[in-house]
Amino acid sequence: MVKPVRGAKPVLGISIGDPAGIGPEITVKALDCKEIYKKSIPIVYSDRIVLEDALNITGKNFKLNLIKEAKEALGRPGTIDYIESGSISKKDDYSYGKIGKKSGDAAFQYILKALKDALAGEIAAVVTCPINKEAINMAGHKFAGHTEIFAKYTKTKNYSMLLSAGDKKTSLLNVIHVSTHVSLQKASELISKEKILKTIHLADYALKLMGKKKRRIAVAGLNPHASENGLFGNEEKLSIIPAVEKAKVQGLDVSGPIPPDTVFVRALGGHFDIVVAMYHDQGHIPLKIIGFALVNGSFRHMKGINATIGLPIIRTSVDHGTAFDIAGKNKSNEGSLLDALEMAISFAKNWDKVHKLH
Amino acid sequence: MVKPVRGAKPVLGISIGDPAGIGPEITVKALDCKEIYKKSIPIVYSDRIVLEDALNITGKNFKLNLIKEAKEALGRPGTIDYIESGSISKKDDYSYGKIGKKSGDAAFQYILKALKDALAGEIAAVVTCPINKEAINMAGHKFAGHTEIFAKYTKTKNYSMLLSAGDKKTSLLNVIHVSTHVSLQKASELISKEKILKTIHLADYALKLMGKKKRRIAVAGLNPHASENGLFGNEEKLSIIPAVEKAKVQGLDVSGPIPPDTVFVRALGGHFDIVVAMYHDQGHIPLKIIGFALVNGSFRHMKGINATIGLPIIRTSVDHGTAFDIAGKNKSNEGSLLDALEMAISFAKNWDKVHKLH
Repeated sequence: MVKPVRGAKPVLGISIGDPAGIGPEITVKALDCKEIYKKSIPIVYSDRIVLEDALNITGKNFKLNLIKEAKEALGRPGTIDYIESGSISKKDDYSYGKIGKKSGDAAFQYILKALKDALAGEIAAVVTCPINKEAINMAGHKFAGHTEIFAKYTKTKNYSMLLSAGDKKTSLLNVIHVSTHVSLQKASELISKEKILKTIHLADYALKLMGKKKRRIAVAGLNPHASENGLFGNEEKLSIIPAVEKAKVQGLDVSGPIPPDTVFVRALGGHFDIVVAMYHDQGHIPLKIIGFALVNGSFRHMKGINATIGLPIIRTSVDHGTAFDIAGKNKSNEGSLLDALEMAISFAKNWDKVHKLH
Repeated sequence: MVKPVRGAKPVLGISIGDPAGIGPEITVKALDCKEIYKKSIPIVYSDRIVLEDALNITGKNFKLNLIKEAKEALGRPGTIDYIESGSISKKDDYSYGKIGKKSGDAAFQYILKALKDALAGEIAAVVTCPINKEAINMAGHKFAGHTEIFAKYTKTKNYSMLLSAGDKKTSLLNVIHVSTHVSLQKASELISKEKILKTIHLADYALKLMGKKKRRIAVAGLNPHASENGLFGNEEKLSIIPAVEKAKVQGLDVSGPIPPDTVFVRALGGHFDIVVAMYHDQGHIPLKIIGFALVNGSFRHMKGINATIGLPIIRTSVDHGTAFDIAGKNKSNEGSLLDALEMAISFAKNWDKVHKLH
């Protein structure tokens, strides 16, 4: 699926996230970047009142253009094309920095509509702003997060979380995860040749979507020093090495297992294009440090992209949360959302070619 | 114990490490820094031939002053005071970049002599250069590394590995580990209230040795998002929270458990002075990234210090390996050794005060 593209510009659906978080602010700030309109047609899935409030807070002076269908979008800088869910009808329906049932439901509806439009081929990609898990659950939507929503509604079993950080000026670090939201104990138990091999293939596929010609994949070990030949754990011997060997036979450019504490440094040094991380924090810790290092010590201004790889549609996301403590205060930074939009554009551009090759 | 200090200068014993690695090179390069002689009296535990070769490689023109006992050291820039082990008597006894029994034995003897001199109160601290584990084992010394050697010969049970990175110009990241060289599976099993509480106290003690007035300790979670209230794992509830609560009652400035992927960023942002990491890679991954980020992308030029906290003597170390691939080529960087010397000086300066307080 994917498409449609209008005049070489992919149509991007931005789900604005929890109205009580920083999603609305970063969305209107990001849409102040004219560059985005040169490369794409962005549509916001939101409610008018949420957008109006975000314009007030950020002092932006955009027109709001309500559309019923994606194809009606004008795609003009200075005008925000948006599709309304009807979940939020008055300002009292939500409060900045507060977990709420109405705002949780709204956040969920924005995603669902964008997701369905993507599945129907009306937009090329969904770019998601942060939601609050507690709020969506309070509203009766029992999901751990975006990834699970997208997996369920697209009926996808084989998918993985990609994180990317850095920009054109610095080294880019890409990390894809064998497992994510499970305990460390469970993450060790989940390690299997099959799971790792699937993730290696998703890593290669992610690099293709990014349009990379070089696709050098590094596979991290699970244990310290990648177990030092079995001294600390046997997962390398039993699962990781067999998966790497198999992937090599299948023609992929893959190395490993590499000690977890050096593999990311080597990737940053330009030795690899992506790292297969064995568990959530193995991949998240270096990514968040890089996002931090890039922005001179400010914790808030994270650069970083999260994408779900393996879905039948494109989904990229900011790599931060709702930041309830600063919501509504115009202190947010749209850098991560801009990165997520850029990645969605790149994925959309390469989609057809990659899937014909596949 | 510790002491002796001569004219306010602590006497530092540098074990030169594996002669076939970069230890000898970085030692003579570090001793070209006159600043070190202003603050300390460095003595090298080595053999003459190893030092002569390092001077050749680096093009340094120092006098070599053989001494029998630490108190004979001249402590003069341009002269290297050294204590000979007699393990290496000719150039053929070792070869750069090669694992060897003779060089493995020599590396071990340098450590042992320095360690014994420290225990005897003849030097204030031991600063270690890298060894090759395989080489020392080949020579019949069955140890996993420096830490185990120091623990055994000082009969220490309660100790922990501290890693530090950064310098005065940037944020300093200090990390102390609940466990290190065990499998990830085993690391999860080793988590207990007692072990964590002990490590929290070692963290506080380490900061005292650094002379820090603020000693804000952050304790990382074990699981993703610190388990999100038990959603992924129960170690936070069963062990980490009780340990943090107990430490608070005992008067320490301690926070946690904090999600592992944000705790290091927050420490770098100045919120905490040290992080208690639950396992080897949780602490090592961010530290190595920081060491890397500090030096503009060069993987070799790591800044970083490793110290064993809890011993009756002071031991600091470089935070890198023997780098056999570049040994003997004058490509090494002495930054990490200079940092390790500075930390040993700081520990020696604060030792008496801290131990009276203890």
